[in-house]
Amino acid sequence: MLLERLGKELLIFDGAMGTQLQVAGLKGGDIPEELNITNPELIQDIHVAYLNAGADFISTNTFGCNPLKMEESKYKYTHMIKAAVENAKIAQQKANRVSDSYIALDIGPIGQLLEPAGTLTFDEAYTLVKQQVEVVKDEVDVVLLETMSDLYEVKAAILAVKENSDLPVFVTMTFEQNRRSLTGTNPETFVNVVEGLGVDALGVNCSLGPEELKPIIEELLATASVPVMIQPNAGLPTLESGETVYHLQADEFSNYLIDVLNDGVAIVGGCCGTTPAFIEELKKLNVTNVKQRSVESLTKVSSHTQTVTITNKVVVCGERLNPTGKKKLKKALLEEHYDEVLVEAIAQEQAGADILDVNVGVPGIDEVAVMTKVIKMIQEVINLPLQIDSSSADAIEQACRYYNGKPLINSVNGKEEVMRSIFPIVKKYGGTVIGLTLDNEIPLTAEERVDIAKRIIETAKEYGIDKKDIIIDCLTLTASAQQKEVKETLKAVEMVNAMGVSTVLGVSNVSFGLPNRALLNRTFLTLAMNAGLNLPIINPLDNELMGTIDAFNVINYIDIDSEHYINKQSNQSKEQKVTATKTDFTL
Amino acid sequence: MLLERLGKELLIFDGAMGTQLQVAGLKGGDIPEELNITNPELIQDIHVAYLNAGADFISTNTFGCNPLKMEESKYKYTHMIKAAVENAKIAQQKANRVSDSYIALDIGPIGQLLEPAGTLTFDEAYTLVKQQVEVVKDEVDVVLLETMSDLYEVKAAILAVKENSDLPVFVTMTFEQNRRSLTGTNPETFVNVVEGLGVDALGVNCSLGPEELKPIIEELLATASVPVMIQPNAGLPTLESGETVYHLQADEFSNYLIDVLNDGVAIVGGCCGTTPAFIEELKKLNVTNVKQRSVESLTKVSSHTQTVTITNKVVVCGERLNPTGKKKLKKALLEEHYDEVLVEAIAQEQAGADILDVNVGVPGIDEVAVMTKVIKMIQEVINLPLQIDSSSADAIEQACRYYNGKPLINSVNGKEEVMRSIFPIVKKYGGTVIGLTLDNEIPLTAEERVDIAKRIIETAKEYGIDKKDIIIDCLTLTASAQQKEVKETLKAVEMVNAMGVSTVLGVSNVSFGLPNRALLNRTFLTLAMNAGLNLPIINPLDNELMGTIDAFNVINYIDIDSEHYINKQSNQSKEQKVTATKTDFTL
Ligand SMILES: [Zn+2]
Ligand SMILES: [Zn+2]
Ligand SMILES: [Zn+2]
Repeated sequence: MLLERLGKELLIFDGAMGTQLQVAGLKGGDIPEELNITNPELIQDIHVAYLNAGADFISTNTFGCNPLKMEESKYKYTHMIKAAVENAKIAQQKANRVSDSYIALDIGPIGQLLEPAGTLTFDEAYTLVKQQVEVVKDEVDVVLLETMSDLYEVKAAILAVKENSDLPVFVTMTFEQNRRSLTGTNPETFVNVVEGLGVDALGVNCSLGPEELKPIIEELLATASVPVMIQPNAGLPTLESGETVYHLQADEFSNYLIDVLNDGVAIVGGCCGTTPAFIEELKKLNVTNVKQRSVESLTKVSSHTQTVTITNKVVVCGERLNPTGKKKLKKALLEEHYDEVLVEAIAQEQAGADILDVNVGVPGIDEVAVMTKVIKMIQEVINLPLQIDSSSADAIEQACRYYNGKPLINSVNGKEEVMRSIFPIVKKYGGTVIGLTLDNEIPLTAEERVDIAKRIIETAKEYGIDKKDIIIDCLTLTASAQQKEVKETLKAVEMVNAMGVSTVLGVSNVSFGLPNRALLNRTFLTLAMNAGLNLPIINPLDNELMGTIDAFNVINYIDIDSEHYINKQSNQSKEQKVTATKTDFTL
Repeated sequence: MLLERLGKELLIFDGAMGTQLQVAGLKGGDIPEELNITNPELIQDIHVAYLNAGADFISTNTFGCNPLKMEESKYKYTHMIKAAVENAKIAQQKANRVSDSYIALDIGPIGQLLEPAGTLTFDEAYTLVKQQVEVVKDEVDVVLLETMSDLYEVKAAILAVKENSDLPVFVTMTFEQNRRSLTGTNPETFVNVVEGLGVDALGVNCSLGPEELKPIIEELLATASVPVMIQPNAGLPTLESGETVYHLQADEFSNYLIDVLNDGVAIVGGCCGTTPAFIEELKKLNVTNVKQRSVESLTKVSSHTQTVTITNKVVVCGERLNPTGKKKLKKALLEEHYDEVLVEAIAQEQAGADILDVNVGVPGIDEVAVMTKVIKMIQEVINLPLQIDSSSADAIEQACRYYNGKPLINSVNGKEEVMRSIFPIVKKYGGTVIGLTLDNEIPLTAEERVDIAKRIIETAKEYGIDKKDIIIDCLTLTASAQQKEVKETLKAVEMVNAMGVSTVLGVSNVSFGLPNRALLNRTFLTLAMNAGLNLPIINPLDNELMGTIDAFNVINYIDIDSEHYINKQSNQSKEQKVTATKTDFTL
C-alpha cells in the first residue's frame, strides 16, 4: 500500500519531535529517547497532533537511539525503541488513523565519526544500525535514515536495513549552504550513490529553511529517479538568550514550498522548529498528485565527494594502478608497500584523470583482502571515483561493499556464468559495470561485438540494472596482430553509441608491438572519441595523450572559448621551459 | 567525320615509312624528307600500298621535317612538307581513297634536347612545331606527334598545334622496357598530362614489339579517357651485319594484337619493321568496333615523372614554399636567392611530401615572372607535382604553361569573375583546380559551403572541366576566433566526400593564436582525414603531423602490415637516439 502510493500521491511526514519536547520542558542534557518509557503520553500526544494535522507518517522518537549513544542511558536501547514504536501505534489508535498512516523507525546519525576522520569502522556503523532495525523490524512501515551528514555512514546504514529486514528505506541528508554535507558530499553524489543502493525515497532534511533549500531540492528533483523527500527547518534560526529560535511561520513555510511541491516532491514534512501547525498548512495547500518528472538517463560514477558523468563528454580513467607488465607495482603490492600505490594514485589525480582504475591482480596475492585494503586507502586520499578492476567476483564484492561511492566495476562479459556472478553485485551495491564484448572469444566484426553488448544489456535488465549503469567495452585490438579488425572496434563504438549506451576502451593495446606507440595511441584515441568513446582508459601522465582530448574538446566546441586548453597548454609550455632551464643549469 | 568515327570504329594507321624507304635503297646518311621532292612517286607508292592494304590513315613523310633539323638539307622545310602532303593526296587519288582515308601530318621529335638536359627552350620547341603546322594546317586531317620521348616537348608541341590550327592531335610516345620514356615519364603520367592538354588520341608507338608493349598498352587502356592509339614495331630487332632487322611476321604481329584490340584500342598501325603486309593482316582480323572502356574517375596531378592520385588516400601537400608569415623566404624571393627556395623544396620532398605548394606572393614582386622562374627551377630538381598558388590569374597562366606536368592550381572560388578568369586556364592547360567554398565571405554552415562547392563544380562543367579535376577546400577556420564553426568544416568535408569529390584543407589555420599549435593541428588533421580529407596542406617537416597520417593509415588498414609505419618510426627513433647521444657527448 505504502509503496503503491509513494511517488504518485503527495505524502506528508510529521514535523519536529525535539521542538515539541522542548516546548514540553525537555532540558538540554536530557535524553529524549527515555521519554518513550518515562512519559509515553507526551510522545503519543505529539504524534496524535501531527496525525490530526494531516501527517501520513509519524517518526518514532528514536533519533539517537543506537546502542553506542544510549550507553549513557539507564534504559536499554532495545526497550526505548520498542516503547517508541508502541507509542506511535497507540497514537495511531488515538487519532483513529491506524489504517491510513505509517510509522517510520527514525534513525539519526550514530554520533561518532567514521574512519578515517574518526575511529568508528564501517562494519561497526553497520552493526549499530542493524541492532536498531532488528528490534522492531516487523512493527514499523519504513525506516527513515535522517539528518545524515556522512555518506559512508549512510551506505552502512542502508546495507544494514536492507540486509536485515524487508522494510522500505527513506534517506535524508543535511547540506550546508555551500551545497556540501559535513563530509563533503554534494546532492548529485548523494543521489547517485544512495539511489544505486536501492533506497525507496531520498531527500534533504534539516539544514536550512525551505527558501534556502530550494536550489538543493531542485537539484535532487533534477537528478533522482526515486521519490524525493524534503523536511526543511522553520527557516534560519537565531540564538536568543542561549536558545535556538526559528522564526518562520507555518503559512510562510508552506508558501515557500509550493513551487517545489509542484515540481515533483513526493514526500514533505518539517524539521527543526516546525510544529503541527506547519503540517496543517502543508495539508491545506491541497497538493495531492506528485508531478511525474523525467530525469536524464546519464552514466555516472561517484566517490563520496565527486560525481563524474560519463555520457556526452570524454572522461579519463587512469590506467596506472594495474600491475600487469609493471614490475615495480607488483613488488609494492606483494610487499604491502602501499605508499607507492598512493603516490601513483595522487600523480594520476594531479595529471587530470577523472576516474582511477584499481587492479591488484598479482599471482599469489590475497586479492580479496588486498583489493579491499587498497580501495579503502585510496579513497581516503583521492577525490576521484574508482574503478574496481578484478577477475575475482569476491574481490569485486568486498571492494564494492567498502567503497564510499558508486563504483565502476570492471568487468562483466557475454558469458552466462560471469553475468550470473557479477550482476547481483552490481545491483546490490549500485555500481556501474563495464561489459566486455566477448564471450568465449573476441568476435572479429563490429556487428558480432554489438550483439554481445545487446545480450549483456538485456541480461542486466533482468537483474534490474539500467543500461545507463552499463558501459560497453568494444575491445581495442592490437594492430600488429589484427590490423584488419582495428577499424571494427571504432565501428562498434559508433554502433553502441547510437544505442544510447556509454563506451569504454583501453586505448594503448592498439599499439602493442609497434614503434612510437604514443603516436598510434593518440591517433586511435582521436578516432575513437570521434566515434563516440566516452571513457578512454589511458595513462594520464602522457601529456600528449591528455592534450589530444583537450584539443578534441576545442575542435568540437566542448571546451568553450578553449579556456581549459589555453590554461593547460600555456602552463605546460611554461613548465617545460622551467624544466629545460633547470636542466641546463645542472649541467 | 573523323572525330565521329574515332573511338567507335577501329581505325587503322599505316606502317613504317623508313623501312619501306630502306627497301627502296635509302642510305643511312640520306635525308628521307627530301624524297618528297626528289622522288615523289616512291613516297606516293608507299602510301598507296598502305591504303590498299586497308589503312585509314597515311602519315606524311615529314618525321624530322622541322626547321632546325632541316637546316642540313638544301631544300626548305616548308617545301618538303608541302610536297609530302601533296604526295599523300595524290596517293589517296591513286588508291581511290580520297573520301574514306585521312592524311596525318607526321611530326617526330625535334632532335635536340630541351632545357635543362639540352639547350632548346620550351618556347623554341613550341615555335618549331608551330612552324611545321602552319605550312599545311588547311591541307591535312590530323597532326600526329609521334615517337616522342620528352613530355615537355610533347606539351610544347600540343600547344603549338592547338594554338595555331583547329586540327585534331594524336600523340604517341615511346617507352623503354622499364615503362619509362627516355626522360623518365611513365604511361600513367603521360596519359594524365596530355589528356589534360586536350589531345584527341594518345598512345604508344615504336619502342617494342606488340608482345612487349602489351602491359603498357593495357595501362593506357586502363587510365586514358580518350581513344588509345598503338603502333608497335615488328618485334624486337637484332643487328645483322650492321643492319637493324625486325623478325616478326605480319600474321604474328596481328595475332599478338588481338587481345588489346578487343580490350578497347581505337587506332592501330605499325612502326619500325612493319610493311603493308602487316596492315593487311590487321585489317583481316576484322575487328570493327572499339570496345567502350570505363576508366575510374580519379583526381590525379603529375610532374613529368610522377603522378599522385588524390582520391582514396591521404596525400600531403607541403606548405613551406609560401612566404606568408615567413620573413626569410620573402627576402630570398625579393633578392632572387632561389637557392634557398630550392633547399626548402628538397627538404620537403625528402620529408615525404607528395605535392609541393609554390607561392611567391610577396608585395612588390613581379609575380608572373618570379612564379614562372621558380616553377621552372623547382621542376628541374624535384620529382613531385607542384601546386601553383597565386591570386594572380596571369601568374597562374604563365606557370601552368611552363609547368612540365599536370599542375594543381590554387585556387578558384565561388565568385563569378574569379571562375571566369581561372577556369579557361584550368581547361587549356589540363590542370586540377582547388575550389574554395567562399564567395564574398566564408559561410558559417557546412551546408552553405557545400552549396558553393556545387556551384563551382557546375560552373566548371560548363567550361568542360570534369569534377575529378576539382578539389574542394571547405576552409579551416581558426578555433580562437570561430570555434563554433570549426566542426562545420569537418562536416562539409564529409558532405563533399560523399559527392565523390576530393577535398583539400590547409590544416594549421585551426590553431592560429592558441598555444601548442602542433597538438591542435594533428588532432584536427586526424578528424579531417576521418571525415574524408584527401589533401592536407601541411608542414611535412613536422614529424608528428606526418606520423599522424602514418598512424591513421595503420588504424584504417591502408598501410598493410604497418610496413610503412614501422619503417619510418623505427628509423626516426634511431635518428632521435643518435641525436640524443651526440648532444650528450657535446655537453
Ligand atoms: Zn532539524
Ligand atoms: Zn619505330
Ligand atoms: Zn615509326
